[in-house]
Amino acid sequence: MEVWFTEDQTKNLRISCRVREVLFSGESPFQKVAVLDTLEFGRMLTLDNVIQTNIKDEFVYHEMITHVGLNTHADPKKVLVIGGGDGGTVREIVKHKGVEKVVHVEIDQMVIDVAKKFFPELSVGFNDPRVEILVDDGIKHVKENKHTYDMIIVDSTDPVGPAVGLFSEEFYRSVYEALREDGLFVAQTESPFFNSDLITRVTSTISGIFPVTRLFQAVVPTYPGGYWTFTMGSKKYDPLAVDTEKISALDTKWYSPEIHRTAFVLQPFVKELLPK
Amino acid sequence: MEVWFTEDQTKNLRISCRVREVLFSGESPFQKVAVLDTLEFGRMLTLDNVIQTNIKDEFVYHEMITHVGLNTHADPKKVLVIGGGDGGTVREIVKHKGVEKVVHVEIDQMVIDVAKKFFPELSVGFNDPRVEILVDDGIKHVKENKHTYDMIIVDSTDPVGPAVGLFSEEFYRSVYEALREDGLFVAQTESPFFNSDLITRVTSTISGIFPVTRLFQAVVPTYPGGYWTFTMGSKKYDPLAVDTEKISALDTKWYSPEIHRTAFVLQPFVKELLPK
Repeated sequence: MEVWFTEDQTKNLRISCRVREVLFSGESPFQKVAVLDTLEFGRMLTLDNVIQTNIKDEFVYHEMITHVGLNTHADPKKVLVIGGGDGGTVREIVKHKGVEKVVHVEIDQMVIDVAKKFFPELSVGFNDPRVEILVDDGIKHVKENKHTYDMIIVDSTDPVGPAVGLFSEEFYRSVYEALREDGLFVAQTESPFFNSDLITRVTSTISGIFPVTRLFQAVVPTYPGGYWTFTMGSKKYDPLAVDTEKISALDTKWYSPEIHRTAFVLQPFVKELLPK
Repeated sequence: MEVWFTEDQTKNLRISCRVREVLFSGESPFQKVAVLDTLEFGRMLTLDNVIQTNIKDEFVYHEMITHVGLNTHADPKKVLVIGGGDGGTVREIVKHKGVEKVVHVEIDQMVIDVAKKFFPELSVGFNDPRVEILVDDGIKHVKENKHTYDMIIVDSTDPVGPAVGLFSEEFYRSVYEALREDGLFVAQTESPFFNSDLITRVTSTISGIFPVTRLFQAVVPTYPGGYWTFTMGSKKYDPLAVDTEKISALDTKWYSPEIHRTAFVLQPFVKELLPK
């Protein structure tokens, strides 16, 4: 017998992964949570039937949502992660010795529990003494903590269901307020092939709030079309002005000082999505 | 009723596209040929049930398999295309005014016929007076035409069935012989996530034959994992030594002078696949 997991990536596009075993399946107050052991990608986390992460390609997303921003800021000491309950983002942040404190706000306790049990490679960072985990609403947290963080990472699900508010102008304004005077934030902002309207709206909104707005890209095979973007809003530092020769070596598989630079070099059809 | 086309991208990974209409389905002496009108990607060509090209993302592959090499060679006049019967590759080549002759060798007449009928956007280049179409075996053609071409493009299907020979050492040696003394070739060489062994073997083989071997990359959403590579073997010119400021403007959506440079900047995990 063959068992397959199928995700509707769009109304008209599906990805299917052959499953060795369903390791966990549950329903939290926020979403359906499942852990599948897949033959192609190893263990895989899905939320509401959408692939979030997996052992094979997780390094791309987690390295890019963290190191680009951390190496853009001159001295990031206090970092906030919203979402990303699997732990991969926190794992990458704690590779930076200068970071003194990571506040991780995940709305769903079940995701954290599942990460600890089934994804030790990702959740390993939770044990770092600098990490504080709060099971709470990230939107509320940024509103209540003004002028607090050097960097904020919005490691959200797609802009449906619980994550809709994380793509709103009001939220980006709260993020601005929650950052210190030279702070910056990075958010995952979907695919230029399938979510071009969202990229246009988000980059336009952020550039109305932050002095520096930059889109950068990577490839996550299990996300629709593979090609994926992140957006940085920054009060002071420009990622393009970083002296990449001074970036310290990190144990990474996708990110490198060279990739730091080239990730911002966008193809003509992506440039067209950005504010003029 | 919903109709879906499903491709086995690997034994354990599938992509499915919703189909509005099956426009053509036939069997040539070489392969099954189908044209589907899909809701997500528009018209799509499949060979032996594998997606070859489609209206939505074809620009990436066709721009990258052509312009990178054409702009690396100082004066490419005579170009050979092996495979690529849909015409997209030829369409991009004829954008270069300096090219005097394009010989297009496609083994399967049915692919050419289908391209002319269903993909006018791709096959438009067939009408250029510089283009000669030969329905023939590309392997035989390179053996019989020594010291003839400035550039050879291997626009093949995956390394199964009719295309196996196009990934062999013997073939790369014939390609070397078919090139003039400063010639170069570019071949599509699959995914670093799913075909890493092939990339290692092919780049190692080519670097044993050509003085310059370079791997470069782009993202084709309908290919497994999106992330895709091309390999260049060159007798003289190095794509990294090109003065990208001197590259003439072309009407392109993925390729640009900046992308010419950054396409060769590889992530650590891809670098590891290359000959040391």
